[in-house]
Amino acid sequence: MTQIVTKINCTLTQNQAILMKFCYTLIALLFLSSNAWTQDNNNNDEAAFFIRKIYDKALTEGSCYNWLHHLTTEIGGRLAGSPQAAAAVEYTRQMLDTMGLDTVYLQPCMVPHWVRGDEEQVRIVNNNSLGSLDIPALSLGNSIGTGPKGLTAEVIEVQGLDDLEKLGRAKIEGKIVFYNRPMDPKQIRTFNAYGGAVDQRVYGATDAAKYGAVAAIVRSLTTRQDDVPHTGVSVYKDGNPQIPALAISTNASNLLSDLLNKGEVRIFIKNNCQKFPDKLSYNVIGEITGSEFPDEIILVGGHLDSWDVGSGAHDDGAGCVHSMDVLQLLKRTNYKPKRTIRCVLFMNEENGLGGGLAYAKASNEKNEFHMAAIESDAGGFTPRGFSFDGHADILKPRYKQLTSWLPLLEPYGISFTTGGSGADISPLKSQKGLLAGLRPDSQRYFDYHHTNIDNIDAVNKRELELGAAAMTSLVYLIDKYGLQ
Amino acid sequence: MTQIVTKINCTLTQNQAILMKFCYTLIALLFLSSNAWTQDNNNNDEAAFFIRKIYDKALTEGSCYNWLHHLTTEIGGRLAGSPQAAAAVEYTRQMLDTMGLDTVYLQPCMVPHWVRGDEEQVRIVNNNSLGSLDIPALSLGNSIGTGPKGLTAEVIEVQGLDDLEKLGRAKIEGKIVFYNRPMDPKQIRTFNAYGGAVDQRVYGATDAAKYGAVAAIVRSLTTRQDDVPHTGVSVYKDGNPQIPALAISTNASNLLSDLLNKGEVRIFIKNNCQKFPDKLSYNVIGEITGSEFPDEIILVGGHLDSWDVGSGAHDDGAGCVHSMDVLQLLKRTNYKPKRTIRCVLFMNEENGLGGGLAYAKASNEKNEFHMAAIESDAGGFTPRGFSFDGHADILKPRYKQLTSWLPLLEPYGISFTTGGSGADISPLKSQKGLLAGLRPDSQRYFDYHHTNIDNIDAVNKRELELGAAAMTSLVYLIDKYGLQ
Repeated sequence: MTQIVTKINCTLTQNQAILMKFCYTLIALLFLSSNAWTQDNNNNDEAAFFIRKIYDKALTEGSCYNWLHHLTTEIGGRLAGSPQAAAAVEYTRQMLDTMGLDTVYLQPCMVPHWVRGDEEQVRIVNNNSLGSLDIPALSLGNSIGTGPKGLTAEVIEVQGLDDLEKLGRAKIEGKIVFYNRPMDPKQIRTFNAYGGAVDQRVYGATDAAKYGAVAAIVRSLTTRQDDVPHTGVSVYKDGNPQIPALAISTNASNLLSDLLNKGEVRIFIKNNCQKFPDKLSYNVIGEITGSEFPDEIILVGGHLDSWDVGSGAHDDGAGCVHSMDVLQLLKRTNYKPKRTIRCVLFMNEENGLGGGLAYAKASNEKNEFHMAAIESDAGGFTPRGFSFDGHADILKPRYKQLTSWLPLLEPYGISFTTGGSGADISPLKSQKGLLAGLRPDSQRYFDYHHTNIDNIDAVNKRELELGAAAMTSLVYLIDKYGLQ
Repeated sequence: MTQIVTKINCTLTQNQAILMKFCYTLIALLFLSSNAWTQDNNNNDEAAFFIRKIYDKALTEGSCYNWLHHLTTEIGGRLAGSPQAAAAVEYTRQMLDTMGLDTVYLQPCMVPHWVRGDEEQVRIVNNNSLGSLDIPALSLGNSIGTGPKGLTAEVIEVQGLDDLEKLGRAKIEGKIVFYNRPMDPKQIRTFNAYGGAVDQRVYGATDAAKYGAVAAIVRSLTTRQDDVPHTGVSVYKDGNPQIPALAISTNASNLLSDLLNKGEVRIFIKNNCQKFPDKLSYNVIGEITGSEFPDEIILVGGHLDSWDVGSGAHDDGAGCVHSMDVLQLLKRTNYKPKRTIRCVLFMNEENGLGGGLAYAKASNEKNEFHMAAIESDAGGFTPRGFSFDGHADILKPRYKQLTSWLPLLEPYGISFTTGGSGADISPLKSQKGLLAGLRPDSQRYFDYHHTNIDNIDAVNKRELELGAAAMTSLVYLIDKYGLQ
């Protein structure tokens, strides 16, 4: 596209002016006809002006990209309990300390300490046409190791947990169960596709072990066809034997499935993951104390831990720097909040939620009230809006109020929906405040999720900055108008 | 993010169900209260069902990514008049031929034939601290060459065309004028930022030549800070001397500006671009003839040419494969259009609009009527909606009708606005049909625009497919309901 903009510029002096006027009239009519739009005009003008200021600052002086650059390139993957997680705690605390906040502190929490160990080996060993073939794999979080000799067994493919019972112990015992149900590409929001397939990763090994399986391998959770394996948490249910659990890439999954259609396939697996005793770690917290209603807390947060492969740029470095930038942008726009605005960088979302649970416990013990908690944990892509969660009887009137603010946010591409919010803030639901999740565009998220390519080069600076601006704008509106 | 989806799954059986019901109720109420929503319910259900079918096909069996892969990796940059442009004409014609359309043909048009020649050299030659320093540069399209010896001159920085008159011939004569006004990062839609800076690239050289400048260099049109130069068209006005015109990267622009603040800077430029006589090329056209109203044409299109550097993946390979996929998706969903659906791959948008002008001329001579023309020329990113253009007195009632369809498209993230449509279809405005442009998310577009990194690896398959589905859905609605 070259000509178009020049063309638009020319036309702007002719018909375009009429069109724009017509467009503005339409928008104005829409405002008038919306009975949800109850704020008075002066307030609206002031809010529109301030939100514009937030976006201007975010897009010209925002710090979130630089912070994320440091987190990902200088520190790297930040699995709970790792030296990198400790370094991230220290770095973000220092950054919050530079902002002139009222409080910055670390909140202790216990976290699991799982270590991947040496690079995993997954090898097809009996295929005549291919010979011995290594395939891209990653141990799942929490997996036990195979021991130094590894293990070799025949593979049996299933499409989900339900297939285990149908097959029964006779067909599963002694084998490696291969879960191959793909994410549904027809879902427009990719998180829904993830939600429809993730049970295989979380419970695949533990459920297969009940039937005598010796290991489980899982198709990576992505709609892409590539050679990149995706890790993620797996869980061992009490009472079931523990067997190794690994993910293999989607290309390898397709190949393996093809080979299984032709005959028996045996696979060699070797990994040496280890679980150590829980470790002490921290949530990182900074806040601006409210000038009028300090006991009404508006929380913004993300999780500071990530998986150990890659550097957790989108998951969830982006959410952390979004949340830090909310405080910085409020400071840089000289906004004095009436309510307490608190940024919480939670530890250990990925494999335990230690930070989120410790935070809610401490908050409840102090009888705190979170009027709102907003989490960013869906990547640093262009924000499409927010999803609101909370007790239904409370959310309904609130949602009406929230949507009355939409005309202020729609110029920035923001819309609202109801649904989930965020894992770390979900334990706060009992306080009956509003829970919200930032919803960035989801199309690329599962290209990078839990992989060694979730790095800074997958993040677009402007897209990241727009997320910080969207969160700051919502915090500003909640602080300014309160919530019903 | 790991825990959240599991959590959502659990909650879905509890409060989530109530929330979702509440959410659906809200949406239903919204439909009822909207007096613009005039189609009857049966029609809506049928349309919603069919649009879902279009998206399902696009996301599971769409061909657009494979076509784009071929165009970009097997053919490459497709500047009008180049062998690659000819190969692209032949390839896309062949692909359209596979679809079982009613007509596939080539429409002749004359196009400029400009050749970049050897790699450009731009070198800071007099800086004591840096020594001689090569900086990343690209000749602008249409630029003349410096001759084999190149040229060396002092640089003078300006912030735009208006500065020339203020400086006057005395300060400009014999120098290289350096246009350094950046794109405004505060614009939410990056095309507006482009529109605010592109005059420097298009007219910078010709206007500077009037004041005796010997060459012009222009800051690349992107909000990124990097080493990637962005080419694009430049124009020589009749009567002005012709001088070489080049773009340099944003990093180099900042460096040069810093050096100029410290003292005189001299630059060496060498390029050997050449202009040859116009060449014969083609628009590629395929159509499904309407079963009831064959004379009412609904056009979808993009431009097949690109710049010579990179491979024109987003600009505008994406728009071409979007448009081809509209026909293929209609075929694969067994839809029999009432109106004629025509895909036009225009030649020479980048440096002449030869294809667009030839198409409109031929169409007017045949007394054709384009009920609608929809262009995709803003990249293969997640679609955010459509922009509608057209004569104001006609657009107003139409826009009301169009917005009555929004509830069918909003589940797919599609919204409507008024504004520009597309350069290639703009000559059709006199036919008084509806003109529309697909609006993908614009944040990343100018990272790649007119560069050697506008390649297939910058395109996400799902984002591309969603664009094809959005266009097909709009075509379907216009065909089904007609336009007021």
